[in-house]
Amino acid sequence: MARWRPDARERLVVAALDLFTEQGYDNTTVAQIVERAGLTRSTFFRHFPDKREVLAAGQDTLSRLLAEGIAGAPEEATPMAAVEAGLENAAGVFTPFNRELAPRLGAAIAASTELQERDALKQVGLAAAMTKALRERGVPDPAAGLAAELGVLAFKTAYARWSRQENAQGDDEQGMAELARSALHELRTVATELR
Amino acid sequence: MARWRPDARERLVVAALDLFTEQGYDNTTVAQIVERAGLTRSTFFRHFPDKREVLAAGQDTLSRLLAEGIAGAPEEATPMAAVEAGLENAAGVFTPFNRELAPRLGAAIAASTELQERDALKQVGLAAAMTKALRERGVPDPAAGLAAELGVLAFKTAYARWSRQENAQGDDEQGMAELARSALHELRTVATELR
Repeated sequence: MARWRPDARERLVVAALDLFTEQGYDNTTVAQIVERAGLTRSTFFRHFPDKREVLAAGQDTLSRLLAEGIAGAPEEATPMAAVEAGLENAAGVFTPFNRELAPRLGAAIAASTELQERDALKQVGLAAAMTKALRERGVPDPAAGLAAELGVLAFKTAYARWSRQENAQGDDEQGMAELARSALHELRTVATELR
Repeated sequence: MARWRPDARERLVVAALDLFTEQGYDNTTVAQIVERAGLTRSTFFRHFPDKREVLAAGQDTLSRLLAEGIAGAPEEATPMAAVEAGLENAAGVFTPFNRELAPRLGAAIAASTELQERDALKQVGLAAAMTKALRERGVPDPAAGLAAELGVLAFKTAYARWSRQENAQGDDEQGMAELARSALHELRTVATELR
């Protein structure tokens, strides 16, 4: 796999995460982010409306892709098969850049209460998007909420595994879609056997 | 059941929620809350360190009671039986005051993005507290996380049902413990049958 070459947007995200880790989210300004990235303020504002959106932008995309995947599953698909289709649809956006970013993102979140809160809200947002998409397929409550929570847990598990595969190459490497699918199957088995 | 008679703490909570609903969380000051409650600033600060804690105080108690109930379940209890013990332990703090408060709390949350975020964080906090308590009993991942999510969903369902029972009296009335138990059993059945 070719090594990732950062474009301006990606350089801004890396610079922002490093600064959030070093000095905290609140203490970091857009001016500092663009200086670290070697870019201009106007470049920043072409990509993001504000500092907050450097992290939030990915979440909206993810929620949309999960919901679209669920909505697009065959009519006869079970709730869990629809969740799987959502996870597969979202897995497509995970690039080598996301993987290189994962340790930085983890460090920035560990260093900031505000980012921990944002991360928690992100999880709730993903669950809500999936629950809504499942209800729109006619899945009743509480099955819709439960299937969505399994989807979020599977996504988190798969992301953690995927981002730890730093040294995997070629055939050894598992894609996000494959990891999400196997995490979801594992969780369904655990759910079935829960006593 | 005797009608609830508010003490100073409860009057402050009611006044705060009404003001959050009417004019937003950000626009509400401690001075306005004490004026509405007919109390003094020093009374407010005897009960709460700041405005934020008017809402947050209950959450810490709830997390602690859920975790203590899980920790105190018999050694041989299954993960779901431990979650049930947690819910029962927490159900004890739901008073007639909490029920009278429920519509106000719902209105304040519906009116404020900040309170919606706080509510989402509360759910994540409850799930984290239960997951930790289950792991400490030796429940492995992902079963611990999954059982905790079922516990949170059961709690939310039970609270919604309990707070809607406004006109129930005496024998017709179901307590929070009973509602939480039946919601949890319902969810476990759904989880077992999820396809």
